[in-house]
Amino acid sequence: VTLGIGDDAAVLEPKPGKRLLATCDAQIEGVHFEWSLIGPYQLGRRAAAVNLSDIASMGGSPVAAFVSLALPPDLPLESFDRLFEGIRDAMASEGASVAGGNLARSDKLVVDIFLLGEADRVLTRSGAKPGDVICVTGPLGGSAAGLDALRHARAHPDAAAAGDTTGAAVDGRLAGIAGAYLDPRPHLREGRAIASSAFATSMIDVSDGLAADLGHLCDASGVGAEIDAAAVPIPEGIEEVSRRTGRAPLDYALFGGEDYALLFTARAAAGDVEAWARGSTDGVRVIGRITSEPGMRLVRPDGGTVPLRPGGWDHFRKAEGG
Amino acid sequence: VTLGIGDDAAVLEPKPGKRLLATCDAQIEGVHFEWSLIGPYQLGRRAAAVNLSDIASMGGSPVAAFVSLALPPDLPLESFDRLFEGIRDAMASEGASVAGGNLARSDKLVVDIFLLGEADRVLTRSGAKPGDVICVTGPLGGSAAGLDALRHARAHPDAAAAGDTTGAAVDGRLAGIAGAYLDPRPHLREGRAIASSAFATSMIDVSDGLAADLGHLCDASGVGAEIDAAAVPIPEGIEEVSRRTGRAPLDYALFGGEDYALLFTARAAAGDVEAWARGSTDGVRVIGRITSEPGMRLVRPDGGTVPLRPGGWDHFRKAEGG
Repeated sequence: VTLGIGDDAAVLEPKPGKRLLATCDAQIEGVHFEWSLIGPYQLGRRAAAVNLSDIASMGGSPVAAFVSLALPPDLPLESFDRLFEGIRDAMASEGASVAGGNLARSDKLVVDIFLLGEADRVLTRSGAKPGDVICVTGPLGGSAAGLDALRHARAHPDAAAAGDTTGAAVDGRLAGIAGAYLDPRPHLREGRAIASSAFATSMIDVSDGLAADLGHLCDASGVGAEIDAAAVPIPEGIEEVSRRTGRAPLDYALFGGEDYALLFTARAAAGDVEAWARGSTDGVRVIGRITSEPGMRLVRPDGGTVPLRPGGWDHFRKAEGG
Repeated sequence: VTLGIGDDAAVLEPKPGKRLLATCDAQIEGVHFEWSLIGPYQLGRRAAAVNLSDIASMGGSPVAAFVSLALPPDLPLESFDRLFEGIRDAMASEGASVAGGNLARSDKLVVDIFLLGEADRVLTRSGAKPGDVICVTGPLGGSAAGLDALRHARAHPDAAAAGDTTGAAVDGRLAGIAGAYLDPRPHLREGRAIASSAFATSMIDVSDGLAADLGHLCDASGVGAEIDAAAVPIPEGIEEVSRRTGRAPLDYALFGGEDYALLFTARAAAGDVEAWARGSTDGVRVIGRITSEPGMRLVRPDGGTVPLRPGGWDHFRKAEGG
């Protein structure tokens, strides 16, 4: 970035030979977040993470962010400062800077981030082939379960312990899982390691839910998939939430979304991928395989196989359904 | 653009030796536009023009746009299609494509566009020096007057003639000036010609109003300025609006904003700039000079000099003032 905030446009000098990556994603008050569940600093980090994860899923490194904010007139100046600080900190910890943006007013807060990145080798959604193993870079379902934990604590304030920094006070045993929602870590290091490996064939980040994002990957690659339910990694603390909400841990993992782990396919034996991962990116687990037969199937712990449908979070489908 | 819509991020191959430009700007329902005054296709073109103008003001060419839309659930699908078509057409006519974006729902429509461009030589706001002449690439005040014409027609439906394609029916004599608001033309060709000229020293687009944007340019360059009121070009038809609203044409030109002409400074004699312009970018007018004395002054047609204050459109100042 040779010229940042303050002129009509930012000026960047692209590094020779690198590919440029570009993505954008918005967080809208009342749609993507509620002020009673998340503070402005965490919202800023989260809005950054959503975009950083898109760069991670291509195997890239973030370079420069552009922040378009629509602010309600009654938003305290301190909240604005904390929000911006959250964005800046999350970007800085991955080597990127905020290079521009614009401000407007609006009834509801809109945080729209545009992020530029760069990569030597890009890994897309469309390279999966029958026989490839399906892998994830971390546990799934924590974000949706964490959001439910925060909602549960808000609905039952007496049962919740104090001493919490978020909007809702969360029981100590739930604080860990709440963090999966409030401060998801984009898997940038993992994404680069996977993209530069010899065996990776496709990659996507888990934003809509494992089933939905695997569906996107299968559609783009023209293949089907089989997932071993028992192999899907579940985060610690999720059973505590399941006990309160009645939603099974596997259901959170398959359909929860917003985990921002990476889902990738590899042309290798399962043991080889996990052995490679032990030396570089801990947390990688093989959870299934790509099939030539279209559609997705779930192999249950008892060995039975059931169809797996996307069923993940989809703003428009939800809106249409009322 | 080697990979567009459909993956986690778009992939671009930057041209060697070119500088990369990046800008973003949003149009928010109820803040930047009202559905009773503009249709979805024109709104799309306008949202594109606001961003194209930022690339124009750096002397660049647009390459790839990313569109982040927040849509009310009750927006008809056809309006969405027309909006997107307007963005795409405006980009295509300047050689750029829509390479990505995202959709969400929201109470109010938000059209947030992020635009990447490229340039050989970049012209910023900060190069103006005392003695430089101040120039504009076209008439000013038409957009604000056009908006007033549309509002006036909405308030007086009986006086307005039919046969108009916009939300409000505008009197035939006002249709031309309404177009300055509904479909402003970004001055990309002019911007490139100015940036590659030997004499240009700084440039900005007129988005906030001549006085406000000249103020930005003076602040960035550490200089003052003097504007000759009689030299400021006024668009045809503005007197028709002034007669109805009581706001003087010069007031529209100085403080109206959203004209998207370019304001630039040049180290040359006034006659030389206008002679150069006749061969390449018609419509360029010399309207004043840069001074070492800070602040801005307006030389009235009678020869008297008065202080000129920014006083242009400012969302936050307006919001604070109620």
